[in-house]
Formats: sequence, C-alpha cells, structure tokens
Amino acid sequence: MRASHVDVVVVGAGLAGVSAARQIASAGRSVRVLDARDRVGGRTVGHALMNGFTVEMGGQWVGRTQTAVLTLIDELGLQTYPTYDTGAGITARDGTVIRYDDETLGLPEEGLTEIARLQSELERLAATVPLASPWATPEAGELDRHTFDSWLTMHTDERIALAFYRLLSRGIFSAEASEMSVLHFLFYIASGGMIDVLIGTTGGAQELRIEGGSHRISERMAEELGEAAIELGKPVHVIMQDEGAVTVVHAGGQITAQRVIVALPPTLSGRLRYAPPLPAMRDGLTQQLPMGTVIKVQAVYEAPFWRNDGLSGQALSLEDPLEITFDNSPPDGSCGVLVGFLEGVHAREAARLQPERRRELVIECLRKYFGPGAANPTEYVERDWAAEEFTRGCYGARLGAGVWTQFGKALVEPVARIHWAGAETSDVWNGYMEGAVRSGRRAAAEVLANL
Amino acid sequence: MRASHVDVVVVGAGLAGVSAARQIASAGRSVRVLDARDRVGGRTVGHALMNGFTVEMGGQWVGRTQTAVLTLIDELGLQTYPTYDTGAGITARDGTVIRYDDETLGLPEEGLTEIARLQSELERLAATVPLASPWATPEAGELDRHTFDSWLTMHTDERIALAFYRLLSRGIFSAEASEMSVLHFLFYIASGGMIDVLIGTTGGAQELRIEGGSHRISERMAEELGEAAIELGKPVHVIMQDEGAVTVVHAGGQITAQRVIVALPPTLSGRLRYAPPLPAMRDGLTQQLPMGTVIKVQAVYEAPFWRNDGLSGQALSLEDPLEITFDNSPPDGSCGVLVGFLEGVHAREAARLQPERRRELVIECLRKYFGPGAANPTEYVERDWAAEEFTRGCYGARLGAGVWTQFGKALVEPVARIHWAGAETSDVWNGYMEGAVRSGRRAAAEVLANL
Repeated sequence: MRASHVDVVVVGAGLAGVSAARQIASAGRSVRVLDARDRVGGRTVGHALMNGFTVEMGGQWVGRTQTAVLTLIDELGLQTYPTYDTGAGITARDGTVIRYDDETLGLPEEGLTEIARLQSELERLAATVPLASPWATPEAGELDRHTFDSWLTMHTDERIALAFYRLLSRGIFSAEASEMSVLHFLFYIASGGMIDVLIGTTGGAQELRIEGGSHRISERMAEELGEAAIELGKPVHVIMQDEGAVTVVHAGGQITAQRVIVALPPTLSGRLRYAPPLPAMRDGLTQQLPMGTVIKVQAVYEAPFWRNDGLSGQALSLEDPLEITFDNSPPDGSCGVLVGFLEGVHAREAARLQPERRRELVIECLRKYFGPGAANPTEYVERDWAAEEFTRGCYGARLGAGVWTQFGKALVEPVARIHWAGAETSDVWNGYMEGAVRSGRRAAAEVLANL
Repeated sequence: MRASHVDVVVVGAGLAGVSAARQIASAGRSVRVLDARDRVGGRTVGHALMNGFTVEMGGQWVGRTQTAVLTLIDELGLQTYPTYDTGAGITARDGTVIRYDDETLGLPEEGLTEIARLQSELERLAATVPLASPWATPEAGELDRHTFDSWLTMHTDERIALAFYRLLSRGIFSAEASEMSVLHFLFYIASGGMIDVLIGTTGGAQELRIEGGSHRISERMAEELGEAAIELGKPVHVIMQDEGAVTVVHAGGQITAQRVIVALPPTLSGRLRYAPPLPAMRDGLTQQLPMGTVIKVQAVYEAPFWRNDGLSGQALSLEDPLEITFDNSPPDGSCGVLVGFLEGVHAREAARLQPERRRELVIECLRKYFGPGAANPTEYVERDWAAEEFTRGCYGARLGAGVWTQFGKALVEPVARIHWAGAETSDVWNGYMEGAVRSGRRAAAEVLANL
C-alpha cells in the first residue's frame, strides 16, 4: 500500500516528469509520479526489432551543446555513440535525385544564395528574442502577427528557398510554415542555437545516439526512484487544490501533496479537470498549443548497403512525402536501418492510407533515394504519434500567430500549487529532450523553494 | 428514477443541444440532454437587474435573414422587438469623438474609400468559399497560409482602414485579425451574408432582441422536452462506444444510447475522454479551435439619456478598450442600458484588472462617448466568458492559419456513433444562435437517419 500523501506529485512520467522527480527525491522530499501509460519515457520509446536491436520510435538524438541531458546520461551510466555521418548525401528535387558530398545539399547556386540570405536575416531577428520571455522581443507584435509562411512569401519568391524553408518547418516542427508565427520560429531556432545546429548531424542536434535507446534515460531514473514512487496505467482525471494542499485524483485513487508538477504536453494538460478551474489565460493558452503531426518509420535491411555506395543514408526531398532520412543502424553495423519521417501535411495524408499502402509509399521513397537495395526491407515499423491518446502528436507543440504575445506568459507561470514542466516549457532547447530535462529541473526547483 | 437507456444522448444544453433534442423528441424518439451547468442555454443567459429588467449576458440579437431561429422563436410563442437604432452614432478616433448621422461611420473620406475597396475584394473572395467545405475553395491553400492581419498589411497601408478591419475582427470574432486565417475570415463573412449584414443593426445581425432574453429560447424548448429529459449539473467525463451502443459516463451516473450528439464548443468536446480514443484528425482539430475572448458589460441608468441628445447609443472606437456599444434598454425605455464589449486583446488586458478598476475603465469609455450622464450608472454588470469553466470563451471558436485546409473536414464528420453539433459546426450563420439551431437540427437529422 502506497502512502496517500507525498510532498510532490508529478503527472507524466516522460523525460521532464521523471527528471523533476529525480531532483525532488535527491533533495530528500517524497515524490510520486503518475502516468496514464504502462511505461515511462513519454515521447521516447524503444522497439525491439526481430533481429534483437532496439530502435528508437520517438525522440532519439542528442547534440554536444545539450549539456543537461548529456550530463544526465553520464550520471546514469549510459553511453552515447555517433550517428553514422560518413559519405554522400542525397537530395531529391525537380524530378531527379542528386548526390552531393559538399555543403551544397545538392541545391542549385541561386537557391543556396537565397537560403543563406534568409538564414542570415532570420538569425539576426532570432538573436533579438529573449528566450525566457519571447513576448518581450522588440518587434514582438509585428513578428507574431504573421505566419512563418507569410514572412517567407513576403521576403522571397525564389522557388528553392521557399521549398527549403517549408521543408525545414516540417523537419523541425512536424508542422507547416503556415502553422506557426514568425515569432515562434525565431524563438525556437534561437532556443536551440540557430539553424545549422538544429539541422546538423555532426556538430548538431542529431550528432549522438544513446546505447539501448533514448527511453533508457527515463527508465534508469525510474529505477533509481524505485517502484513505489511510480504508478503506471493511472490517467489523472482531476487536480484539486486549496490553501492547504493539492489532491490528484487518478484512475486508481487519489494522492494528496503540497505541490503538483504537470509534465504533460500542454494540450493534454488542458484536458484535465481542475478545481478551482484554471485562470482564463492558462486555459486560453492550452486551447491553442497543438502538437505536430509525424509518423516515424524504420526500414530494416540485412546490412547498411548504402554505405558500400558511399552514401551516408541521409536524404532530403523537396517533392516526396518521406522528406528526411538518416542511417539508424546499430553502432556495429550488424544490420542496416533507415529511419525516416512523414511530417506535417505528409503525415496527415499518409495517416489516411491503409498501413500496407503507407508502407509501399515509404519504401518507394527509400528506393528512389538509395536504389533497388532499399526495395525489400526485412522489417518495417512505424509510429503515428498523433494517434496516441496519451501524447497526441510529436515532436512538440507550436505557437501559432498571436499566441506568444497574447498568452505566452501562462506557459510556465505556476497556478498556486500547480507547476508546469515539459519540453515545451523550456527556454533552452525548447521541444527537445534537453528542454524536457531542463524543464523538469526548473519545475522541481520552483517546488522545492516552496516546500 | 430516469431510464438508463435512451435512443439519443445530447451532451450540452445550449441552443444547439436543446434544438437537436427537440427535433429528436418530435420524431418520437427518446432523448436525454446532459449539461455540466445548473441551467440550460449555454452561451445565452439572462441577468435580472435590480430594477427587474432582464438583460442578456451572452448572445442576444437575431437578424431578419436568420430564418431558423426566427421560426423557432415564433413556434415557442416568444416575441421579438427591434434593437433601438434611432439617432446619431459615435466614433472615437484620433483623440476625438465624432458624431455622425450618415453612412460615414464618422470616418474620413480616404479611410472610407479604402475600407470599401478592401470590402469589395474580401467579399469577392468570400463568394468563392463553398460554405460546407471551405477547404475546397479554389485558392484555399493560399488563403489559409496567411493570417487575416497579414492579408490586410499586404493589401493596404491606409491607417484608418487597417484600424477598422482590426476592430471588425475583434467585433465579429472577439479575436485579433492575426488569430485567424484569411480563409476563416472569408468563410465566416460568407456564412452570415457578408460584412454589412454581420455588422448591421436594422437589416443586420443586431436587428432584433427577444422579449425576456435570448435564453428563453432554450428554456422554452427544455420545458417542452420535460424535466425527465434534461439532467443539469452533470458534467460528462467519458463517452464509450462499441459496435452495439454508446455509453455516456457523467458525474451522476451513466446512460446508454444508440447515438450521442456532442453539442459543446469544440475545445470542450476535445477534453472529454473517449473510448476508443478519437481519430487523430478530430483530436488535432480540437487542439486548435480556441474560443474568442470577450467581457460583456452592461451599464444601467435611470433613463436612456443619450436618446434625448439624439444619439442611438451605438459607439465605435478605434482607440479605446470598450470598442463597441449599443442601446440595450428595455423596449419601453423605462430605464437606460448601454451594452458594451471588451474583445480580443482588450478583454485579455481588462481581465487582469481588479473588478473595480475594470468598471472604472468601462465607465470612462462610456463617459467619453455619451457625456457626463454616463458617469454614474445605477448598476453595472459584466461577464467574462473566458473564465467560465463550461464555456471558456465567446463568441465562438476561430480557425487559425492552416486549420481549415488541414483539419477542417473533422469539424462535422461523425465518429461512428458520435455526432457533432454547436454553432461552430454550421455552414450557415456559423457562430451565431442561428448557426447553433441549424447545427442541432443537422445533427438530429444525421442521428434519426441512423436509428
């Protein structure tokens, strides 16, 4: 029988929630983590292939500048290894497949020049965003009025540059450029260290993988916390608070605490019932923080055959639904794995297909990029995060036009005994595993200061 | 003891839900309406002033072209009376208060010319929107990429015209022009019969009031349905369905039915739990259909003193937080009532004030428009709809950039035994009481065809 009273309840056993709990426990306070699912890890989850290798079906990469998660990985005794990043890249455009091994990304000169000009202007603007308060950006009103797509069309009519930035929006946000404000785009690239870092492999956000899979970070922390501290399969229904305490009612009972940390995607946090009801600003915020739409796919082969062709396994397409791929093979290369992403409109369209037809669509793309060797994977797995009741989309939530300036302050501001965590609440590396860890620690610090 | 099985359960006893129930009952089928509140009427509600007159604190006006609600009013034995619309109007702009009794709205020639030019262009585009499927608009992709504010700034830099259309956005949607896509703006004005009808009093959407208040429409229908058919104070928690039936679990128990109609604002419908979970497209839609922000205020005076000055009580301001007012006095003029609206950013800012300070802000505006006679109301009442747990905003939900084209189909499409109603789901007079009534009937027809 677990205690019916703890110092802190954490709702959500993803990386943010478990990180918060770890911090609270290490301060000598009692903590209970509740999750609706029967596992920890949230948007990180492993899948054991038939050959025994575990691939990551959610967030998977970490980068050198992500110091909080790297330190954590080290503390937990986990190892990282580099993403395979040797050889030529592939870019599909204008009906053809281009192989490149330079900085051109296989794009034509005039496109590259315009991409660089826009990047410079975007990063100049991004540098003006105060990460902890994007609404205080000097030109916030103007930057929040327009969608990123409007900004693009107001600033260029160069075909390749437009296609590139629309692809970039899907690649980074799993959302169309029209589905976020310019201010959100700027905040987000600034939060992660600007565009080259966000899209980079070596030196960038996709540089390193975690042995055994990224979900092991949450699993190891959960093991440290101990079984009694984590209750799985317990969706939370109601959070009640008064001057003396907060009570969390879940599918298996209720727990009373001094403070609660809600570490869910914002759109899910808005679905819980609260007594008293949340302030209008917080509720208004979660009415409009939709999650991205992505289907992550992995195609498994006997061997990473593309490496023999001198290819890195990284492909971009300006015209196919599977727009981005990486080599996701095991560190020893004992089998070949290509990971790819259907994002934004491509994910929404592909989700309507029968599974067999969707698989064909993906394999067609892989064959186009990597040749006939890609035609017959030994295994194919996919994950549609928007269909998952207890996530409802990846990679994360985005802020559409007007939301940062009108509702942004409510993203992190506690509501009496309720504190908010989750990758979406981090000022640094917002939306990434790094942001999740940082948000959990920030929320834990808020709570500890009030116990 | 009520039956535990009916043909149809309706969730939400607003105008849409009760209209649906009436249609179902009149077809000889059994129906149960559940509402979280202790009253019917949803976004229509009356408030009895100290002098005995009941003012409308939610939706209140109907117009001549709103045939469904007018016929319903007639069938229920209710009466309408004209909104007071005699005398000069007031427009505050450029630091001054202008009185006008012509078509100029007190705006300068160059502004009016540009307003007319843009109106003509907007209405030309709006006429291309198929109301039942806005995503099929010829230029849907382009019109859905940009916010209405972006469209405005791309089409004009005339100061008065910009201010006017931003005011119009707040006045019609309780939202900023940046908070909706061009496509949504166009759909909405087409849905109601174009701009002059939407903003008009005589001949427009504000032409008529209902004796006793608009909430009486729902109340009368509820009386007809009988006490056994309506359960109040019963928030719905879970909707479970399988091949044979649907079960609705609420705060007071559960009911099984063949079909359920969810007649809630979309953002609230997305907060219920569903088993099986809703499809990703439906969930993705309700993640991003935020409600407008409005505080409705009524200032009461011994007499409608402005009428003696030859004023209609209608004011517009391009620079004050209380942007729009109307004469809301009883039909016999036995006291004076001015109704006003704080909308969009003005509502969000005013909501942060202490009630006493907010009252002062409102009265300052009324005094500016109508003179010293407005300085000392005998009574002042207000309603902040965004703070209401079981509405969470008015007038209705809006679709931001990208939402109609990406998720629009899921707005009305049933999910097996679950059907959707509410003013937001109507193709004609979307967002108005007329749309609510029509949506209830449409959902009832869907259900009756499947019983």
